[in-house]
Amino acid sequence: MAIDNVKALTFDVFGTVVDWRSSLIREGEALGKRKGLGVDWAKFADAWRGLYQPAMDEVRSGRRPWTKLDDLHRESLATLLVQFGIKGLSEAEIDHFNRAWHRLDPWPDAVPGLTRLKKKFVLATLSNGNVALIVNMAKHAGLPWDTVLGAEVARHYKPQPQAYLTTAALLGLTPGECLMVAAHNGDLAAASTVGLRTAFVPRPNEHGPGPAKDVKPAREWDVVASDFVDLAARLGC
Amino acid sequence: MAIDNVKALTFDVFGTVVDWRSSLIREGEALGKRKGLGVDWAKFADAWRGLYQPAMDEVRSGRRPWTKLDDLHRESLATLLVQFGIKGLSEAEIDHFNRAWHRLDPWPDAVPGLTRLKKKFVLATLSNGNVALIVNMAKHAGLPWDTVLGAEVARHYKPQPQAYLTTAALLGLTPGECLMVAAHNGDLAAASTVGLRTAFVPRPNEHGPGPAKDVKPAREWDVVASDFVDLAARLGC
Repeated sequence: MAIDNVKALTFDVFGTVVDWRSSLIREGEALGKRKGLGVDWAKFADAWRGLYQPAMDEVRSGRRPWTKLDDLHRESLATLLVQFGIKGLSEAEIDHFNRAWHRLDPWPDAVPGLTRLKKKFVLATLSNGNVALIVNMAKHAGLPWDTVLGAEVARHYKPQPQAYLTTAALLGLTPGECLMVAAHNGDLAAASTVGLRTAFVPRPNEHGPGPAKDVKPAREWDVVASDFVDLAARLGC
Repeated sequence: MAIDNVKALTFDVFGTVVDWRSSLIREGEALGKRKGLGVDWAKFADAWRGLYQPAMDEVRSGRRPWTKLDDLHRESLATLLVQFGIKGLSEAEIDHFNRAWHRLDPWPDAVPGLTRLKKKFVLATLSNGNVALIVNMAKHAGLPWDTVLGAEVARHYKPQPQAYLTTAALLGLTPGECLMVAAHNGDLAAASTVGLRTAFVPRPNEHGPGPAKDVKPAREWDVVASDFVDLAARLGC
């Protein structure tokens, strides 16, 4: 089997491990209540996430130097505060809200599944989130990573090949000894192009009631699992 | 208190967390038994560690480009196999023995102490060991790191300031929010120079029956603890 040599699982995080949308809505609603703001926080969450790829594109293209995701999120947030007419937040309050991304909640199967997978495999993150964001999220959510790698240590955002290859190299492994786990076909396609094995775990509710983009595997990935507990079972954990 | 702002503990690993000397002797003896070798493995372990600083000095000085510790260890091992007259090992056997550094055992208080400290602080490694070495060691020894940072991600070996500063920056913290934990006064001195707080935990048996170098704190470090369980108690965990 193509995955017999796999020694480490590398994880996409936003959407795959944590439910960023519900978590941001929760944080927005709490902020709105404290500050008396009338905002559609689901729209706000979708708009914030909507600025994610364009912001990273500026870095991917080389039009701006390496900038970590916390800083890109902060710039997008400043734009959206104006756009949604949100006023009266101190710099400290804006910073705290920006770090809502450090406090995202996991899908219910994430911690039990990872806990089983950790007994057999090295578990590393391969996210576009910066190290501090992913470390703090792990503390908040109880995610048992062995280590946090990905975009910031590679200084390249996915789907650029360096993000995947640097992560494998830092783990001392060949790409084929790493299994990329993601809810997004595009992430797996990029990982696969540079030799990683692939596991698709659909998260049909990632975008809430809106149309789901990645409900089905777009290709015959090495593994397709319904959630992380199913993934553990399929990998013999 | 100077350490009230501390959010992360950054750990030296070789000697501070793991007993490299006894572990290498154990691995050497097992190899010697398998291959019928008559070698003084304590001498061998000390000689291997003896080549550690000179090898890193080649990188620190810029005389050679960044080279990870696994590769430096492998070169030193090749030298020592000749020096100790050890013959008849296959490349795979030499590689396996080189990865003895991935299988070092912790001091008895390390796992219980870290487990307590992890509830309150981010625990990151700040070692000269490369990421794969430290990740594999953590799997072997059950060390509950939140993430693995240090020399390889900074591409600078301690005591160069970049090793400490890059680690703090990746954690999203100021140097003063990081507490460097080490059994070596020199490591703490370098960390302190660039603003990290300092905790000294002596490991008088690091060098076996030989003369211990760092039995006592050389300065008034922020914290002095007898072991990791004592460190947890002193930090209110």
